[in-house]
Amino acid sequence: MEFTLEEIAQLLGGEIKGDGKVKVNAIAKIEEATSGSISFLSNPKYENYIYTTQASAVIVKKDFSPKSPVSAALILVEDPYSSFTSILEAYQQALISSKVGKEEPSFIGNKSTIGSNHYIGAFAYIGNNCTIGDNVKIFPQVYIGDNVTIGNNTTLYAGVKIYASCALGNHVTIQSGCVIGSDGFGFAPQADGTFKTIPQIGNVIIGNNVDIGANTVIDCATMGSTIIGNGVKVDNLIQIAHNVKVGKNTVIAAQSGISGSTTIGENCIIAGQVGIIGHLKIANKTTVAAQAGIGKSISKEGTTLLGSPAFEKLDSLKSFAIYRKLPTLQRRIEELEEKILNLSVIKEL
Amino acid sequence: MEFTLEEIAQLLGGEIKGDGKVKVNAIAKIEEATSGSISFLSNPKYENYIYTTQASAVIVKKDFSPKSPVSAALILVEDPYSSFTSILEAYQQALISSKVGKEEPSFIGNKSTIGSNHYIGAFAYIGNNCTIGDNVKIFPQVYIGDNVTIGNNTTLYAGVKIYASCALGNHVTIQSGCVIGSDGFGFAPQADGTFKTIPQIGNVIIGNNVDIGANTVIDCATMGSTIIGNGVKVDNLIQIAHNVKVGKNTVIAAQSGISGSTTIGENCIIAGQVGIIGHLKIANKTTVAAQAGIGKSISKEGTTLLGSPAFEKLDSLKSFAIYRKLPTLQRRIEELEEKILNLSVIKEL
Amino acid sequence: MEFTLEEIAQLLGGEIKGDGKVKVNAIAKIEEATSGSISFLSNPKYENYIYTTQASAVIVKKDFSPKSPVSAALILVEDPYSSFTSILEAYQQALISSKVGKEEPSFIGNKSTIGSNHYIGAFAYIGNNCTIGDNVKIFPQVYIGDNVTIGNNTTLYAGVKIYASCALGNHVTIQSGCVIGSDGFGFAPQADGTFKTIPQIGNVIIGNNVDIGANTVIDCATMGSTIIGNGVKVDNLIQIAHNVKVGKNTVIAAQSGISGSTTIGENCIIAGQVGIIGHLKIANKTTVAAQAGIGKSISKEGTTLLGSPAFEKLDSLKSFAIYRKLPTLQRRIEELEEKILNLSVIKEL
Repeated sequence: MEFTLEEIAQLLGGEIKGDGKVKVNAIAKIEEATSGSISFLSNPKYENYIYTTQASAVIVKKDFSPKSPVSAALILVEDPYSSFTSILEAYQQALISSKVGKEEPSFIGNKSTIGSNHYIGAFAYIGNNCTIGDNVKIFPQVYIGDNVTIGNNTTLYAGVKIYASCALGNHVTIQSGCVIGSDGFGFAPQADGTFKTIPQIGNVIIGNNVDIGANTVIDCATMGSTIIGNGVKVDNLIQIAHNVKVGKNTVIAAQSGISGSTTIGENCIIAGQVGIIGHLKIANKTTVAAQAGIGKSISKEGTTLLGSPAFEKLDSLKSFAIYRKLPTLQRRIEELEEKILNLSVIKEL
Repeated sequence: MEFTLEEIAQLLGGEIKGDGKVKVNAIAKIEEATSGSISFLSNPKYENYIYTTQASAVIVKKDFSPKSPVSAALILVEDPYSSFTSILEAYQQALISSKVGKEEPSFIGNKSTIGSNHYIGAFAYIGNNCTIGDNVKIFPQVYIGDNVTIGNNTTLYAGVKIYASCALGNHVTIQSGCVIGSDGFGFAPQADGTFKTIPQIGNVIIGNNVDIGANTVIDCATMGSTIIGNGVKVDNLIQIAHNVKVGKNTVIAAQSGISGSTTIGENCIIAGQVGIIGHLKIANKTTVAAQAGIGKSISKEGTTLLGSPAFEKLDSLKSFAIYRKLPTLQRRIEELEEKILNLSVIKEL
Repeated sequence: MEFTLEEIAQLLGGEIKGDGKVKVNAIAKIEEATSGSISFLSNPKYENYIYTTQASAVIVKKDFSPKSPVSAALILVEDPYSSFTSILEAYQQALISSKVGKEEPSFIGNKSTIGSNHYIGAFAYIGNNCTIGDNVKIFPQVYIGDNVTIGNNTTLYAGVKIYASCALGNHVTIQSGCVIGSDGFGFAPQADGTFKTIPQIGNVIIGNNVDIGANTVIDCATMGSTIIGNGVKVDNLIQIAHNVKVGKNTVIAAQSGISGSTTIGENCIIAGQVGIIGHLKIANKTTVAAQAGIGKSISKEGTTLLGSPAFEKLDSLKSFAIYRKLPTLQRRIEELEEKILNLSVIKEL
């Protein structure tokens, strides 16, 4: 995609200093920008870069006055960082919007309806009785089972798999390889040492404004629904087991795992590679540090947890600080033992 | 799917109290059931729900006598929980069985044979010289490489990838995104700091009654076979490296990883996010707690391990209990040091 | 595939002792070989196997003289192990090379070019404006977004997903289910507790001779590029976040995760299930033990790290050795306290 500075200045409500006919086709940091790029200068400590940048255009503060010649054209705005973010968003939006229509071959089952302005990539599969909203982008090789409902403005990248009867909200974005609605891991032990599979007939319900990362797995409920609340952000390679509920605006970083029937509160922050066992309740605004292992419910809002098994952060840091010095601690005990021995011997003398 | 209560009562050998023509199309817990659902009451402590449930039908004990009016129809049986599980199984079986025939486009290579009553979803790919049994359900976008054999009653959900020459048994169920037979991670270090890839020409052999979760990876053997025994249950996002052997009826929870050439015994229970290094032997009936790291072979059956690095569970719990109180322990040492100093000073006086 | 011993002896520059017309179609360890297989004997301590092996042919040292009758044909070479590896490589190469041409249906966008001797499997998708080199093997159900460039001799196994604008080098091998270029995990917290998605418009650049495992995810950069250097080997189910740089010849084992904007040096060895937080610099030749958690930059080359949080290996081992004996340490403190009490009491008397 290519835009003139005039088009960009209009989008930003900014003023051009230089040639408005200049075209840019890339967006880059000021220190990495090449010819044809647009960049920005917000923090004054990076000002030097503007005199050497290869960028064709730089967004700067209204009151910016260069100390040396600048070869790039300038766009003057109130808040360069926020203007730059607007360009990023417009760029990404334009990329997504450019995908429209239905590529062939693709497969659509019986009685499924799809809203306007959709994209259905080649080799995408949509089962029977699906209801899909407007502006939905279904990339190639996506699989959507029977009876799935999907809201408006939702994007499923290449190879996403949605099992039958799941429901996705509006403005949901799911990255490639993510699996939604796979069978939960439930097996009843038998007397002969084998396990009998417990049928998993529930589904997954995903709210609005949810982002889910690549190759993440969210299992369906045994009965009822595994629920991902509005505004939840889930990173890559995460395991969310059957009947889990994740409260709204909670963020979960890569490779974490949440075991069956656990309820995570709202506005929690769960760092990477965290494990949370099953059937727990985690209070709102809980923060869990990377690689922590949570084995107990958390009832107090705003708790921060660390370690495996995890306990309250400050206590965990104190214990770890001493752990690092355990050899010193042991030596001090040995010295004490020696001194006591000497004292006892002397006493006996 | 929709069934009349008469059909269900016949399946369960139960007796109907109410209108046998009533139709149900959903299965739900008694406290969550809506109209059109069938539910069950087994534990007397949930009896109150039966007087308020929206379920159209409830399975109850033969001798159940309501204390208040019940709007739902009743099905009277010996064991409501077990009857309910039978319905779940019948329901899931019916869902799977309803998928039959070959959707187009799909791809089948030369000299491959497929048994009766199969389902081959659109965009599924079957290579050359494959032998596939009866009642096999191959969902859309599955990939099966050349020379693969698959037993009867096996289900591969959407997007499963099976590399060439792997062998799957009967009654195997594999969830979406799972990869079977990818190249093992073997590289020979060279004098110049680079690594030379060691070809991986073996396969994966999977026994009967095995369940494998979504996005799990099982690498092929360097030579010979990576082997998953009968009745093994493997959860989501698990790594099983080249030449691993997993004994029958072992259960492995999500996000665990087993390194190359390790042999896991029979009837082991491995919790989530466990790591087991390579070339170990783990005895039968070993239990490994979540997030544990196993660095040594386990020779004694029935051992339970905890921690990273893991050691015997009770010892591990004791060490951890003191770890939590390390600041107190340190203070006690400081106090001892002070007292000793006082004693020594007094002695010298 | 089937080869005569004459063909193999010619490849290896070896001499046949036995019938050169014998055909072999499998490669196996000497103790596991069945009729039709070729095997090797390098280490004299396995010599006994050669008198009982079912292999049709065995590669042996030039000067090998059997003490008992051997039923297998022999191929005499300088270095049996290295010759055997050559056969493995030739075998794997032949397997890959046998895949040529374009299966239908597959999808190729506008203005994309593909070099000679390619394989494009059925249901593979190649977007617009892609440039793909010679001898590239694109297995079924692979997705390649718009504007992707791929070098020569690169292999993408079934179901690999490459997002738009990524660039792959020569001799790159990517296993099934791997996702390259998915959106990085970036969200700006808003005053109302929600998160605003930060657009991720960068790409992933992968060097030459890189191997990437199954279901691994490498996110695109926010701006600019996530970079995987030449000769890097990445195992299965690994998370590499946005703007990460991995130096050449670094090896990363399964299920490890590297957070955003971290730079890993050259020739590092990162074991399985390791977590590395964001914005760090890890020196060249750093070794990280399995399940370690790295929370600080490493500036000294050749450091080995252990534990979560990790610190220098020897110190970490010492602390852990005492951790295992913490109950004993606690008992020693109790004894000291008792002795001190006795001493003090006596003194007072």
